[in-house]
Amino acid sequence: MKIALAQFNPTVGDFAGNTTRILALAQRAKERGADLAVFSELCICGYLPQDLLERPAFIERNLKELKQLAAKLALPAIVGFVGKTKTKNGTGSGIANKAALLSGGKVVFEQSKMLLPTYDVFDESRYFQPATEQKTFEFGSEKLGITICEDVWNDKNFWAVRRYDRDPVTELVGQGTTVLINISASPYTIDKRALRVDMLRSIALSHQLPIVYVNQVGGNDSLIFDGASEALTLDGKVAAQAAAFEEDLVLFDTATGQGEIHGQPPEEIAYAYRALVQGTRDYVHKCRFEKTLVGLSGGIDSAVVAAIAVDALGAENVLGVSMPGPFSSQGSKADAQAVAQNLGIELKTIPISAVFDAYRATLKPVFGARKPDVTEENIQARIRGNYLMALSNKFGSMVLSTGNKSELAVGYCTLYGDMAGGLAVISDVPKLMVYELAKFINRQKEIIPRATIEKPPSAELRANQKDEDSLPPYDVLDRILKAYIEDLRSPQEIADKYGFELKLVREIALLVDRSEYKRKQAAPGLKITSRAFGFGRPFPIAQRFIP
Amino acid sequence: MKIALAQFNPTVGDFAGNTTRILALAQRAKERGADLAVFSELCICGYLPQDLLERPAFIERNLKELKQLAAKLALPAIVGFVGKTKTKNGTGSGIANKAALLSGGKVVFEQSKMLLPTYDVFDESRYFQPATEQKTFEFGSEKLGITICEDVWNDKNFWAVRRYDRDPVTELVGQGTTVLINISASPYTIDKRALRVDMLRSIALSHQLPIVYVNQVGGNDSLIFDGASEALTLDGKVAAQAAAFEEDLVLFDTATGQGEIHGQPPEEIAYAYRALVQGTRDYVHKCRFEKTLVGLSGGIDSAVVAAIAVDALGAENVLGVSMPGPFSSQGSKADAQAVAQNLGIELKTIPISAVFDAYRATLKPVFGARKPDVTEENIQARIRGNYLMALSNKFGSMVLSTGNKSELAVGYCTLYGDMAGGLAVISDVPKLMVYELAKFINRQKEIIPRATIEKPPSAELRANQKDEDSLPPYDVLDRILKAYIEDLRSPQEIADKYGFELKLVREIALLVDRSEYKRKQAAPGLKITSRAFGFGRPFPIAQRFIP
Repeated sequence: MKIALAQFNPTVGDFAGNTTRILALAQRAKERGADLAVFSELCICGYLPQDLLERPAFIERNLKELKQLAAKLALPAIVGFVGKTKTKNGTGSGIANKAALLSGGKVVFEQSKMLLPTYDVFDESRYFQPATEQKTFEFGSEKLGITICEDVWNDKNFWAVRRYDRDPVTELVGQGTTVLINISASPYTIDKRALRVDMLRSIALSHQLPIVYVNQVGGNDSLIFDGASEALTLDGKVAAQAAAFEEDLVLFDTATGQGEIHGQPPEEIAYAYRALVQGTRDYVHKCRFEKTLVGLSGGIDSAVVAAIAVDALGAENVLGVSMPGPFSSQGSKADAQAVAQNLGIELKTIPISAVFDAYRATLKPVFGARKPDVTEENIQARIRGNYLMALSNKFGSMVLSTGNKSELAVGYCTLYGDMAGGLAVISDVPKLMVYELAKFINRQKEIIPRATIEKPPSAELRANQKDEDSLPPYDVLDRILKAYIEDLRSPQEIADKYGFELKLVREIALLVDRSEYKRKQAAPGLKITSRAFGFGRPFPIAQRFIP
Repeated sequence: MKIALAQFNPTVGDFAGNTTRILALAQRAKERGADLAVFSELCICGYLPQDLLERPAFIERNLKELKQLAAKLALPAIVGFVGKTKTKNGTGSGIANKAALLSGGKVVFEQSKMLLPTYDVFDESRYFQPATEQKTFEFGSEKLGITICEDVWNDKNFWAVRRYDRDPVTELVGQGTTVLINISASPYTIDKRALRVDMLRSIALSHQLPIVYVNQVGGNDSLIFDGASEALTLDGKVAAQAAAFEEDLVLFDTATGQGEIHGQPPEEIAYAYRALVQGTRDYVHKCRFEKTLVGLSGGIDSAVVAAIAVDALGAENVLGVSMPGPFSSQGSKADAQAVAQNLGIELKTIPISAVFDAYRATLKPVFGARKPDVTEENIQARIRGNYLMALSNKFGSMVLSTGNKSELAVGYCTLYGDMAGGLAVISDVPKLMVYELAKFINRQKEIIPRATIEKPPSAELRANQKDEDSLPPYDVLDRILKAYIEDLRSPQEIADKYGFELKLVREIALLVDRSEYKRKQAAPGLKITSRAFGFGRPFPIAQRFIP
């Protein structure tokens, strides 16, 4: 059986757009001789629909689209949708995350997802009832075992610790499955691609089964799906592979074990860069914007964000804004100009000094003889935030904010100032990785000025300010942050592991916890690590736990 | 058996503070002759701990506190804590939301929560494993059936539609329970108090059982717990009742069916007002602030917020800030002064015109000949936001933002402007209810000037602006919003129900959905309705569903 792995970029709730893409890809699959096209999880409504799932009209529309798809599809296909499901005595939500096999104008088989992820950014137990049983379906020459995303992430041979007691794959294998299908909406995180192929290989080998894995591609809000769909033969070889971060269709023949291999960036830094580009492009476009604004300080963060934006949207859709203040160095102003020039984007310069003076003069009667402190630093950052928002309002562009994860973690950023914007492009990128991205961006030619990369990081909000006046060096800070936030290690464990002073680690951990109030009001950011700030990390503000 | 219903105000993660309160209340219960003290759900760590539950050190600390409590308690007690639980073959989180009966220096009985709420603000399936069975425990003269919060919210005689297939209460009754205990952390929402007593009465009557219900009191982040613990006799009479919104201890005698009744505000508007006062006080104090700032525009929203803040924190801890601009009316300036005077709070006046002029002059070269539009309106709002934040930074006060739910729903508010602040006191209060609160506040004497209540609402950001230029009248808008947001009705259903034009309802529904990007960056707000914006309503931004 020739199976087409059809990965496309759905927009949440865009039923007309999503089904148009499904029909077009099915047509292509048919023309290329496929017997079956496989699409991704919840592809009719797009993933992550969140509380749209509470609206009955949303569910009804998705069911109507499923029916119409069945009637119109050029060939049999497996699609993901929100289906009605049996309830126990009328209890439960009555809906499930489902796969449908559409053939001959109708739905011939349905399978609900059994393992509902409810951790990190996933909250499927909030909405869905799980499958109570897993069934194979005989189709053509094969006995298909259809699973949905998390259903394959629980293999007892692969994971030292498993989340779920049941294993849908084993249950399907027991029923004589000849091809294991998995439809996914599995967001990109660093190093997940390698983990995924290892995990799928383990299943293929231990069960001696070919696997067809089809993943969503594209960004929806904070999540970036990499696609990278693939088929593995029963000896664990990747026989078919789709491109990453773009719509694609590749064929896999279950009879011969042959398939098409499309290229992907091999290095993780290139892959992460592509994720950020895709996430930026999709967020801007799916929010109905074309044009964006980036405040260019001359520092590395804003330079990297501008480069990503240009790659995502085109130089003509990115406006750089230099907003020099009383503590901006000549070097920074020159670096901002250089990066704009290198990227071929327009740069506007709007100084903040006159407005800053007006704030200080107006506030003087209230502040009296009190010395300048963080207040005046924040006013400068907020004037810049206001400028960008004013340009956004006047010209209909989206502000891309430029803070990195290390700053956001410890609150080294200004609410409504540098935190202002529609999308925080690198808010899940640790500072050291920002440097890696800068070097990657500069590989072909120098985009980000060498001076920007080499100078010590500074917010330039007071004379001679350096990040290291307030924070440990980033090679120390980033290790503490990863261990504390992503790996949930205690300060003692972190101090022991790296030989850092316990007092320092405790201070940083407390800063992270106490800065939650800022992050609650941060612009949505693109997730690329195993644990990003934002909706996947609900954390109380008014709490007093000492880590 | 004399049971003490011991409701107190825990702070999330404040283990030392929480156990100190538990021990003090237990001592009081002992002195008053109680045989058993009952505390609320997760009282050792405080509710809602969210992702603190992912930290092993948090769990360990809570277990250590439980052990110490057992050793120190003056009398037997039931407390809520996070317990270890059996896993199936090592799968699952291994922790449960538990009640412990402490007696004779040790834990003599543990019961896990069976029904884990995973909807609205609750995400307990994210963290906990459910009880697989429910057991009674013989203690003194009684057979205790111990349930935790949601466990009693699933009575088949009371609910037309039930969420869960199992009913822990019925299972306990089948084992001969003589007293049903429920320990809760059940947040206040409008009209929930009446629902709760009806629901408990239904259980008491249908099972012919006395019920002891102990609820958490106080605010933690967005949630406000009303306490209002109560005991019902088997004939459904409320025999014991604790106060609302304050720590309290009342006794109930299972032998005689007698108990103490402490008063509660009878009217719902008074109860809601108390909720907002408590929520404000606790958020400010638990975030380690004493002093607050309120921008007083002369409008009703800021007047109501200032009145709540004064009640919560004392007049000496509330600073009013009048920030007149080019479109502020004389009436509004006078009204701001009047409300400050009536409340006995200091008022500072900081005009925005000079700074506004500086912004316009600086931006003129960029804006060219473009006409003033929403950009200039937003700049004014953002200057005010910046002033408040500058005062906050300089003097260490928390900004209380003043937007109401109706505005926030349709995006009739400025990001980083009037939306700026540490706590959004009335962001879950619909505009019409803001008027009700104002009238309630004015009952004893006029606090909020009559002119403030009677004038048509206006943002005063351009000449002759009125809310009704952009929005339908609030008595129309608020009905649409409640039906759409809280009751999940479709525009068609809403138009049919109220006789509104379908086109208007659709426009409002779309405005609600399209304003999600603003709300994602809103200050945390106090929840008082069945569905507040914020973490209990995860909603995608870049989505295209047409409601």
